[in-house]
Parts: sequence; C-alpha cells; structure tokens
Amino acid sequence: MQNFEFYNPTKIVFGQGEIAKLQELVSASRVLLLYGEGSIKKNGVYDQVISALGNKTLFEISGVKPNPTYEKAMEAVQLIRKEKIEFILAVGGGSVIDSAKFIALAAPYSGEAWNILTQRDLALKEALPFGSVLTLPATGSEMNCYFVISKGDDKLSSGSPLVYPKFSILDPSVSFSLNDRQVGNGVVDAFVHVMEQYLTTDNKAPLQDRFAEAVLKTLIEEGPKSYLTKDYDARASHMWCATMALSSVFGVGVSQDWSTHMIGHELTAFYGMDHARSLAVVFPSMMWVMRKEKFSKIKQYGERIWNIPVNNDEDVKKVIHVTEEFFQKLGVPTKLKDYGIGAEAVTKIVDRFTSRGFEPMGESAAVTLEKVKEVLLGAQG
Amino acid sequence: MQNFEFYNPTKIVFGQGEIAKLQELVSASRVLLLYGEGSIKKNGVYDQVISALGNKTLFEISGVKPNPTYEKAMEAVQLIRKEKIEFILAVGGGSVIDSAKFIALAAPYSGEAWNILTQRDLALKEALPFGSVLTLPATGSEMNCYFVISKGDDKLSSGSPLVYPKFSILDPSVSFSLNDRQVGNGVVDAFVHVMEQYLTTDNKAPLQDRFAEAVLKTLIEEGPKSYLTKDYDARASHMWCATMALSSVFGVGVSQDWSTHMIGHELTAFYGMDHARSLAVVFPSMMWVMRKEKFSKIKQYGERIWNIPVNNDEDVKKVIHVTEEFFQKLGVPTKLKDYGIGAEAVTKIVDRFTSRGFEPMGESAAVTLEKVKEVLLGAQG
Repeated sequence: MQNFEFYNPTKIVFGQGEIAKLQELVSASRVLLLYGEGSIKKNGVYDQVISALGNKTLFEISGVKPNPTYEKAMEAVQLIRKEKIEFILAVGGGSVIDSAKFIALAAPYSGEAWNILTQRDLALKEALPFGSVLTLPATGSEMNCYFVISKGDDKLSSGSPLVYPKFSILDPSVSFSLNDRQVGNGVVDAFVHVMEQYLTTDNKAPLQDRFAEAVLKTLIEEGPKSYLTKDYDARASHMWCATMALSSVFGVGVSQDWSTHMIGHELTAFYGMDHARSLAVVFPSMMWVMRKEKFSKIKQYGERIWNIPVNNDEDVKKVIHVTEEFFQKLGVPTKLKDYGIGAEAVTKIVDRFTSRGFEPMGESAAVTLEKVKEVLLGAQG
Repeated sequence: MQNFEFYNPTKIVFGQGEIAKLQELVSASRVLLLYGEGSIKKNGVYDQVISALGNKTLFEISGVKPNPTYEKAMEAVQLIRKEKIEFILAVGGGSVIDSAKFIALAAPYSGEAWNILTQRDLALKEALPFGSVLTLPATGSEMNCYFVISKGDDKLSSGSPLVYPKFSILDPSVSFSLNDRQVGNGVVDAFVHVMEQYLTTDNKAPLQDRFAEAVLKTLIEEGPKSYLTKDYDARASHMWCATMALSSVFGVGVSQDWSTHMIGHELTAFYGMDHARSLAVVFPSMMWVMRKEKFSKIKQYGERIWNIPVNNDEDVKKVIHVTEEFFQKLGVPTKLKDYGIGAEAVTKIVDRFTSRGFEPMGESAAVTLEKVKEVLLGAQG
C-alpha cells in the first residue's frame, strides 16, 4: 500500500425531507443561491429551499449549464464581491456544485481567476464557505474538492482542500423528476469513476479493491432499477454509490488512471457529448488497448464482478462486452458512431493534446499519444 | 435506507515514516503528550515524536492503561488547566485516544466531569483540540468521536462530534513491536465492530452491506498474515480495516446492534478480560441466541463471506463455527471457561444491568434480560 492522506470533512445529510435542515445548516445571513436552468422551480426543490432559508438575505444566479462555464461563474463572483455575500448554496448536480467551488475560490482571489484552473502551483489561501443540495446522483462533486470548468473549448479540472462543501443534502426523492437519460448517465458516471481508481495494477491494497468492487456490484444491481423505476431505495443506493465513488474512501493508497476522463473531456469540449456518455465510449476501448498492462486487474474485475474467468484476450473481450451491455441497458450507447462522431475526432484530440504539451497518462504513464489514438479508433464502432 | 448524517473530519496520515509530519500538523505551542505504559520508549515512537515536536513546550502524562480510568484522565485535566496546555497528542492505542477525547471535553468543562459519561443530554460546547499517533490497530478510535472510560467497575461509553481527532497518524510499521496477543486481539476487535453494524436485519442499504463485507473479507485474508508475520502490506491492511470499521462509512442509514459490546464491557469490568476477547466470547453466542431475528443477515453473511449456504439451524451452527475458528486462529479463545470464568458471571452481569435500569438492546430491542442470560450461558463452553 502506498502512503496516503485521507481527509473529507463534508457533512452529508441524507434522506427524504432533509432539505428543511438548511435552516440549521446555514448560519450566514447573506446567501447566494446558485442553480441551473430552472428545473428546481418545477420539482418543488426551489420552494423547499426558500422555505428553509426564509429569514436570510438571498441573492440568485441561475442558468448554470452542463459543462459549466467560466463566464457564468464570474457573474456570480462579481455579485458576491458587490453584495458582500457570505455563503453560497449550490442547488443542482455536479455542474452547479463544481461552479460553486470555483466561485468560492475566485471570489476572494485578487489575481486572474482563470489561473486557478491553469496554474497547479497557485497558493490559494481562502475560499468562501458553501454547501449543496444535490439533485442529480452522478458526479460525486457533493463530497469532494474537485471541479471542472469550461471556457470556449477548453474544459479544465482542478481541486483544493479549501473547497469541500461544508454540507451536502442528498434527498433521493428530489431526483425523481430527472429524465431517464440523466439517471442512466448518472449510473455510468459513478461506475467509471470507480473504475478509474480501481482498474490499474496490484497495489497491495485489498480493502480499497473490495470497497471499489462493493460500489460496482451495487451499481450493477441497483442502477437499472434506479434507471427504470421510482423505487426510493434503489435511487437512494444509486445516489450514495455516486457520492462514495469520488469521496476518496477507496482512492487512497493506490495508483489511479484518469486517462479515460482526460479523453472524454475533449469529446465533450469538441462535440458537446454528455460527460457520462463520453466515458462510456472511451472506457471500454481503453480496457482493450491497455489489456496487457492492466491484465491482473481486468482478471480480478471479470472474476469478482461478472463471474467470468479471465485467462486470455478472448476472456478480456467478454468482460468488456458485459461492461458495455451494462452501459447500454442504462440507455447509454458505447460507440462514437452512435453519436455521429467520425474518425476526425482522433486527429482533433491528438492535436489538442500535442499542443498542450502531452505527457503520457495512466498509472504507469503507459497511455502514450499512440495509445490515445488507438483508444479513439477502437471507440469508433 | 434510513435517513442519516455522515460527518467525519479526521485527517488520516497513513504510512511508514509519517510521524515526522507532526511538525506540520501541530501548530499549538503548549502540547500535552499522553501515552501508555512506556512501550513507545522502547520501539522508537517516543523518539520520533520528540524529534518532530522539538520546538514545542511539551508536558507528559504517561501510564494510561487498557480500559483507561477516570482518575488517570483527571490527572491530565488538572495539568492542562494549570499549565494552559493548548493541544493534546495521544500516542498509543484506543485506550490512550479514548482518554484524550474525554480529557479534551473535561478540561474546559466546569461541572462534574463524570457527568460527561453518565448524562446523555449534557450540552457540551467546546473541547480542546487533539491528534493521535496510533500504535495499535484495533479499536478505530483514531477516526471517530466515541470513547469508553472506567471508574471502579463501571465501564461507560459516550461520544461527541466535538472530539474527532484533528488528525491521526497511522504508521503500520510502528505496530511491529506489539506482541502477538495484541495483534490477534486487534483483528478480532475490528471484525466484531463490523458485525455489530452489519448483522441486524435487511436495511435496504446494499452498499453499506457490501462495504461491511469488504472489511470482513479483508480481515479474514490479511488478519492471520498480520498476526503471524511482519509483512508490511498485511499489517497496513489490518490497520486500515480497523480504522474504517468504526469510521461510520458503512454504519450510516442502517440499524445497528451493540449488545455484544454492552455485555463484553461488563466482562472486562468484572474480570479484566481483554476487550476483544470479551467480544469473541459473547458474539458467537449472541448469533446463536438471536438466530431467528437475524436469520436473513446470518444467511447473507454465511453465503457471501464463508460460502456456506444457510437454510436452517444446522447451517447457522456451521457459520458460527467457522467464525469461532477464525478468532481461534488469531490466538483468541471463544468460551468463558477458557478464561476461567464460571456461571456466576451470568448473575453478576444480569444484576448489574437490572440495577442500572435495563432496556432491551439490539436493532429491534429484542435482546431482553432473558436473552442476555442465554447468551452468557451459551458462552460458557
């Protein structure tokens, strides 16, 4: 096991009816309500929030979109500075919560805010406190300190221990108003988040492996029920899986491989693919291209999760096949051609990586530019 | 799944050589070093701590014993008040860390300190900050807010969100100087901690179940290696399992049953049994006595953990038998007669429970006084 630090101070308040607890959870008096494109006004969440925070001075910024933008976030930064706002309440999914994190860091920062995403060594000293009311079980942003922000066709990620949400309220029943595509995407997103921390090499960290497998198995059992029905317990398990998936609980002490995300982000930046769908396309192809390097872990995954003995390439194909079938069962196609994206994507993304100064990715830096090409070609279908 | 809150802000610093990080982790200048009976002076841990905290004003209280006492803790409270100490560093196992929690609450408390353990509704407002350097993987106290303190033959537990350690340093290699009995006990302790959160009824919380099973399986695989060898990775897994076991990661959203602990504490209070050994004696008998109420979970445990199909009492016996064998393999006997304790224990403990105003225990309050008797009789051997 590698040496590690684990720290996750976000308080989770989980269950039906818990939005009312905002009253105790928010002590600041000038609060920015940050949300998306208005679905919270249709499903009752907005009303629940307003009712719990009735005695606060509330400000609002709405219209945060999937793949949230720098420009929208900076609107909020300006409002916070002008109105001396003390607390941000993000009400929505990963996009709104990611925006809140960036805003929380940018508001007190005197330099050029985009640097927060481009300069890894920036010594950030403070952040505005914020909390979240989660409406979409998928990204795990509600219980970690990472965020992704887009500007033009740049989609960049960063993180800071200053931006763990103070609290996140997870009421599975509020997600019943999501459409099927959002729910299916949410299961796939959580599944691939686990895989990118798990499908590497033997890290001699068997508890972390088994925790990861616990989330995978639960998503396989409960995900399709969450997708197709409004069963509260299935949705609750889906939601808790998605949160745990990126909470670091099993990402500590092990090597990780986020190359599927890195490639997926470019597919979203260039073609507007849903984040989860970009992962569903890249990940199976990545498994195949990196099958030699990842063999022992693919074997463990196949045997423990799918009960498929894995000894050779044919077996690896079977494991990849059932993984794709699982994504498809959630309404998520797994080939680029299903999204009308052709071979030109390969050059576009390889050029983009090259222009940024590409460094090989993956747990042992074996995902070279050549492998990225192979992955994208393999993902064509 | 039941509604729940999850909050665990302890920072874990894990791995060989990490004690040196105390230098960054402790910012206070007047620090109380709290430790046990001197083993840390033999195994080099004391020297590592002193070397990292060389520039602080250090005070020391040593001699904290297993089943730590109120009297020893109050020594520390008086020193803290007199010397205006700002931070406690607990160096040891669960006894030292439990003591630090109680001391942290008692030092700023103006009332009678024993009330902290006896009055559940005490509105505690503040606690001295503290951190820990863990030397014994067992209790999980390094990453939760619970503690157990003894006075005479009273052994009482309590907890407060004010006393999560600010940090805990877990260096598996420092535990290589423990004796076999301490290591074996540590595995059993962690195992039973998991079982008391897991072996209840169906809570429709499949992720929590699978997380619990992940710890059980890892303890079964790695525990005996940790017990018999000085394999770093096995010890690291044992240590991380013990910490995760009581971190609430899978104790949320489910019913729990701590009746084995409640009975075990009395065996320790009356007979000085090691905590883990009291659990190893009570828990198998509890499984048998409560087999009807817990049947569906015993079945799941037997089938998923031991690969034993469970359909009737004979199968339940097999599952209990392999569980006891596992404890015995760790050098921990599982019957009261192995410890020279006779049937008089039954009356003693039942009388004690009665005098305190007994309320039925367990996930559905089905562990009545009558069942406690049966459990203790069954544990005789």
